[in-house]
Amino acid sequence: MNYKYLLKILGKIMVLEGTLLLLPLIVALIYREGAVHIMAFVVPSVLLLGIGFLFQLFRPKRNTLYQKEGFALTAAVWFILPLFGALPLVISGDVPNYIDAFFEICSGFTTTGASIIKDITLISRSVLFWRSLSHWIGGMGVLVFVLIFIPESEDGSSMHLLRAESPGPKVGKLVSKMKVTTRILYMIYLGMTILEIAILMLDKPIPGYENDKFFFSLLATFGCAGTGGFGFIPESMALFNPFSQYVMAIFLILFGCNFGLYYLLLLGKVREVLRSEEFKAYFLIVGCAVAAIFVCLVGRFESYPQIYSTEEAFRHSLFQVASLLTTAGYTTTDYNVWPATAMMILMVVMFTGGMAGSTAGGIKLSRIVIAVKSTGASVRKLINPRSVVKTKFEGKPVDTPTERGVFSFITLYFFLLIITVFLLSFDPINSTFVTIVSDAGVYRMEHGFFSNFSAAVACLSNVGPAFEAVGPYASYAGYSMFSKIVLSLAMIIGRLEILPVFILFNRKTWSRT
Amino acid sequence: MNYKYLLKILGKIMVLEGTLLLLPLIVALIYREGAVHIMAFVVPSVLLLGIGFLFQLFRPKRNTLYQKEGFALTAAVWFILPLFGALPLVISGDVPNYIDAFFEICSGFTTTGASIIKDITLISRSVLFWRSLSHWIGGMGVLVFVLIFIPESEDGSSMHLLRAESPGPKVGKLVSKMKVTTRILYMIYLGMTILEIAILMLDKPIPGYENDKFFFSLLATFGCAGTGGFGFIPESMALFNPFSQYVMAIFLILFGCNFGLYYLLLLGKVREVLRSEEFKAYFLIVGCAVAAIFVCLVGRFESYPQIYSTEEAFRHSLFQVASLLTTAGYTTTDYNVWPATAMMILMVVMFTGGMAGSTAGGIKLSRIVIAVKSTGASVRKLINPRSVVKTKFEGKPVDTPTERGVFSFITLYFFLLIITVFLLSFDPINSTFVTIVSDAGVYRMEHGFFSNFSAAVACLSNVGPAFEAVGPYASYAGYSMFSKIVLSLAMIIGRLEILPVFILFNRKTWSRT
Repeated sequence: MNYKYLLKILGKIMVLEGTLLLLPLIVALIYREGAVHIMAFVVPSVLLLGIGFLFQLFRPKRNTLYQKEGFALTAAVWFILPLFGALPLVISGDVPNYIDAFFEICSGFTTTGASIIKDITLISRSVLFWRSLSHWIGGMGVLVFVLIFIPESEDGSSMHLLRAESPGPKVGKLVSKMKVTTRILYMIYLGMTILEIAILMLDKPIPGYENDKFFFSLLATFGCAGTGGFGFIPESMALFNPFSQYVMAIFLILFGCNFGLYYLLLLGKVREVLRSEEFKAYFLIVGCAVAAIFVCLVGRFESYPQIYSTEEAFRHSLFQVASLLTTAGYTTTDYNVWPATAMMILMVVMFTGGMAGSTAGGIKLSRIVIAVKSTGASVRKLINPRSVVKTKFEGKPVDTPTERGVFSFITLYFFLLIITVFLLSFDPINSTFVTIVSDAGVYRMEHGFFSNFSAAVACLSNVGPAFEAVGPYASYAGYSMFSKIVLSLAMIIGRLEILPVFILFNRKTWSRT
Repeated sequence: MNYKYLLKILGKIMVLEGTLLLLPLIVALIYREGAVHIMAFVVPSVLLLGIGFLFQLFRPKRNTLYQKEGFALTAAVWFILPLFGALPLVISGDVPNYIDAFFEICSGFTTTGASIIKDITLISRSVLFWRSLSHWIGGMGVLVFVLIFIPESEDGSSMHLLRAESPGPKVGKLVSKMKVTTRILYMIYLGMTILEIAILMLDKPIPGYENDKFFFSLLATFGCAGTGGFGFIPESMALFNPFSQYVMAIFLILFGCNFGLYYLLLLGKVREVLRSEEFKAYFLIVGCAVAAIFVCLVGRFESYPQIYSTEEAFRHSLFQVASLLTTAGYTTTDYNVWPATAMMILMVVMFTGGMAGSTAGGIKLSRIVIAVKSTGASVRKLINPRSVVKTKFEGKPVDTPTERGVFSFITLYFFLLIITVFLLSFDPINSTFVTIVSDAGVYRMEHGFFSNFSAAVACLSNVGPAFEAVGPYASYAGYSMFSKIVLSLAMIIGRLEILPVFILFNRKTWSRT
């Protein structure tokens, strides 16, 4: 283990987080939030900068990382970021309990958007800003960000970091040119962020929040770009004007696309983009899901409380599919009381997630496509054993170890889902009732199996809001401390796509041999 | 396609079913159930024997089957058996609706035990007998049964039938000596069945059913042996004396063991049996699950309605774990109101299922063990890329294609689970309430997500009873015809371990090339 080099990189990341904490500090100063809030950002910032710079003093013998070190470092970073990032929430007094604060900011960095805050109006603007900013930071992966500042090492060890962090099974190859590509991807991310803020600024202000247009556009965009989904006013995005809702839905869909496709677009390779199987599958799923939910809502085959106009039904269908498929988790209406079929469609897209190489979570579409095609190949092989049947994805053959990897990821995803649901069953919250106030009226919901199951999916897939008692108009506040730690872990495991976390906690990683 | 030979084998199976229908006919005669019930068995029997013998007239050019034909035939058989097997239920008037009857007997042959019968006291004894007998027939796989009568073909084509039907990933090798081994396995099955009947006969009769001891012992044993689980008096097995309940629990655990292990025992290879990893994992799971549920029940950390003595708590824990792990589905108490943790443990063992090569359903323990070990190997490989890490199972190395197969099975299992739950969301039964009367009192249950989810697991894993509104004291009667067809299909897919059904319904299987 090259501890010195590991700590040195860790130091860089801490310096980065310490620096980023100055942004909410500015917000606190602008809105004159007083000494406590200023200290809430100054203290952790000084702490991070201090430790961070101290770690820079290490003089490692070699500037390289082994694969296991890369994976372990990546996983460690995702624990350390929220460990310090939670401090402003606690010190400011907005979220007094440390575990709660850890859950909240962990949900931020992992771009989940699950919240334990019951009344968002009690939270200060600087903390709201920090929460949403954590989505944006988490979105493209902190390490991808940091890589730009790390001197490139001879054996491409930073590659190992990328492999551990980049979502999806095949993005590794795409970013193999490393720093250049990384910088380009990051520029695309920044450019799209600025574009969305600019377009949202064109809308009329939200009634009652006339002076907050820029602040809200900023926060809403952070949540879209990172596909995070923290709300910052009551009722998530329901109070936003339809124009903004459409804009956000479209940008969510765009941020759920493989960023490599934008890179190809920049290179003028439009035909390659259109030929991409994952691209086609993505828009097929969006189209089918929106259409099916729209039919459910307009057809009223089952009763549900809201009365939507046709336009509203379409807008909510589009927005909720975009939001849950890309695992953001913003909401414009209480989908928790929709017809069962509509809810199940939303549930399915929560499993699916966006494309590989995007900021979205979930199983990822490329894996689903490979799994389905590979099953088809197995069936054909059994029908005709002498034929040469090869699974192809994006025009290239998929070999057996890759297929094994895809299937094993999906298997582990479901195993971890079952384990999470099982651990949530210890919670005394089970069988209690929660009162929910939404655009569907006031109603009571029992905290049952569906709550725990959907909460586990929502955290593992980094979605955020779930169903039933942890639905879009409820919060995770009622869970016990133990459950909150379990769900935080689920978020990190989901964000890092499972294996890096196993490596971090494996004894062998830290042994000398 | 060797249609003539396929139809000839199909004919043999129809003759067999027609012959077996004479057994419930005898029951109808003994209990003097009248002309309608006699006709209920005579008509389908004559029909099956007629068509079956007609098919024997085919003179195929070759007595061999290709692999695809073997798989397709196996899948076809599992549709044809219940198609005819449902007739007695309809003709007798006990289950007037054909879809209901198909669901019921399909649940019988697939050894699921899910029932649409609301009041079991209204069902005649001959039909009760036929239902339970279908478990016993289904248990070891009808084709394993039939193989004994098929002349062995030169190229081992009957092997293809076995591969499609035998549960678990590796049983193929065990039964490679074919007819001899099959016959031995079948003798073990028969011997254990007789032994259980004999031991159950030692018990005192059930109060109120003094004259039915033999009949009940027979039916209870059919359900244990096939790990089916149809009840035949109200409250499943709750009215049986504790002695019988313990006997059944132990036999359920025995029938959930890989039959190959009994074969090894017969050969005197005790040490090999004890060294089997799947064997150890099986008893570890049984032990842990029983202990954990026992602690939940005795500790009363959460309130639940029943008041158990320590002995009762242990007995119910043991019985329910044995029953749901082996995917039988018999019940001795209403576990539907147990503490959430106890319910989740039962849910987890429903996924797991018994050992490969047993009569149990589910994912199968061998697959779980291989998946876990293979994940461990992946982690070790990432930690130390230059090391040679091999997954081993039962002392033999597991190659990548096998790992891929195991992971892909588990992936498909969960994909099919999600699809089934989605299709059940169309049912108008969702959000309605059902009143349940059990040893926990009278209470109302909403038919929600947990009902559909657990019903889908219970059918795919061939368990039978599920949770919530389709729990142990409820039935599947409320589901729509569409849902019943979906769930029947899930049972057959689960029983045949997915791929054979895909092959049956694949166009390429039936094309000339």
